[in-house]
Amino acid sequence: KGDAAEGKKKAVVCGACHGTDGIAVIPGYPNLKGQNEQYLISSMNAYKNNQRSGGLSNVMQAQASLLSEQDIKNLAAYYAGLK
Amino acid sequence: KGDAAEGKKKAVVCGACHGTDGIAVIPGYPNLKGQNEQYLISSMNAYKNNQRSGGLSNVMQAQASLLSEQDIKNLAAYYAGLK
Repeated sequence: KGDAAEGKKKAVVCGACHGTDGIAVIPGYPNLKGQNEQYLISSMNAYKNNQRSGGLSNVMQAQASLLSEQDIKNLAAYYAGLK
Repeated sequence: KGDAAEGKKKAVVCGACHGTDGIAVIPGYPNLKGQNEQYLISSMNAYKNNQRSGGLSNVMQAQASLLSEQDIKNLAAYYAGLK
């Protein structure tokens, strides 16, 4: 299960592009605020497993490669919980 | 430029999974409501160009393959505009 509080600490890195409030600072990046937790997990894993290329995916592949499975669950819980 | 009104007509198909209001009916699919227009275009093109695999991407690849460039712009304008 994801721990949103832990996710919030980890999200400091993500905030640079996705905003700490989950509203992306760059229009080419997705807003994450209130996104579906399960979809967030599935997308981060897709980047981590290099199943997403094209667009700006190389930036996200690098980031996702640094995340553990628990990090991914915590981050998903954090961003999905932002209302 | 995307035409949100045209996008709304096209979105009838998308609504089955993403909700006509942009809130996904299945947790494994992303909410699209208020997502960044540029990111929506980039994602739909990534599915259309088979640059996204893994997870439930095969469903979306099939859908995206039916969309023209203008459809993609119109849909992006429609969903990005939902507040």
